[in-house]
Amino acid sequence: MDFKSYIRDIENFPKAGVMFKDITPLLKDANALQKSTEALLDLIGDVKVDKVVGMESRGFFFAPLLASHLNAGFVPVRKPGKLPAKKMSQNYDLEYGTDSLEIHEDAIKKGEKVLVHDDVLATGGTAKATCELIERLGGEIIQCNFLVELQFLNGSGKLNKYHLTSLVQY
Amino acid sequence: MDFKSYIRDIENFPKAGVMFKDITPLLKDANALQKSTEALLDLIGDVKVDKVVGMESRGFFFAPLLASHLNAGFVPVRKPGKLPAKKMSQNYDLEYGTDSLEIHEDAIKKGEKVLVHDDVLATGGTAKATCELIERLGGEIIQCNFLVELQFLNGSGKLNKYHLTSLVQY
Repeated sequence: MDFKSYIRDIENFPKAGVMFKDITPLLKDANALQKSTEALLDLIGDVKVDKVVGMESRGFFFAPLLASHLNAGFVPVRKPGKLPAKKMSQNYDLEYGTDSLEIHEDAIKKGEKVLVHDDVLATGGTAKATCELIERLGGEIIQCNFLVELQFLNGSGKLNKYHLTSLVQY
Repeated sequence: MDFKSYIRDIENFPKAGVMFKDITPLLKDANALQKSTEALLDLIGDVKVDKVVGMESRGFFFAPLLASHLNAGFVPVRKPGKLPAKKMSQNYDLEYGTDSLEIHEDAIKKGEKVLVHDDVLATGGTAKATCELIERLGGEIIQCNFLVELQFLNGSGKLNKYHLTSLVQY
């Protein structure tokens, strides 16, 4: 399936000069949703996974679905103030300033095998912060998986310790 | 399965006096994630569904998973400013003031059969606004489905036009 035909370019979103990759046409098409899920699972391969971690908010679209197929649990990594129980925080750099992400401290046990999933790999800041949170809890990252990779932003450079897979590249 | 044993109470979250129902223990347990998905599908029943609509952010956990099982597409309803393409907005009342939700105008076609899913039915404000957006696009709501229903908040009163199902009630 030509997945790119289900991903549309939105100019100047969320701010001027940015070309946003909108995956909602893929999500709303029943067949494209099935086929992209199957293709992501093919990329992930036949590996044992204990937890799939997805990042707020668009990482939540596929991460629980992948967890269900892999017979794993799902763990959300969220923006500050959204998770209700005891949590750990990780800062990361933005173009201007910093932001942070949080994970529940009981979300991952030491030695668990973890798949990281997000919809888009851009500069890699949120993915790297997510990996750091998982490793601080003792999780072993077996793969970082993305629906879309924006290769011109070199996010893979921040993730070169990890096995990285993506379904669609620009 | 005793799903309530996987849902924990968090006192005074997100603000003083509120008892938050945290579903992350259910999500992170592979078996509870499978069993709750199956139980939600049993509640939904053997109906034709074209689109599953899930609300930001926690509605995104199960809505694409249900869409995949029902061979339907998934549509996100989001907070203002998050959807990138041409969209429609619906206001709803909060305890103090108003908020709004948005949907892409091309997300649902006239006559399509729509299942609404969110994690928790509380006062029903976001669910009602979501139903209004779907109906303004010409969609036919066949069911409003929730993982958790807080019956003491009477959210079902705002949704009495619709077939309502929930897996766990408090």
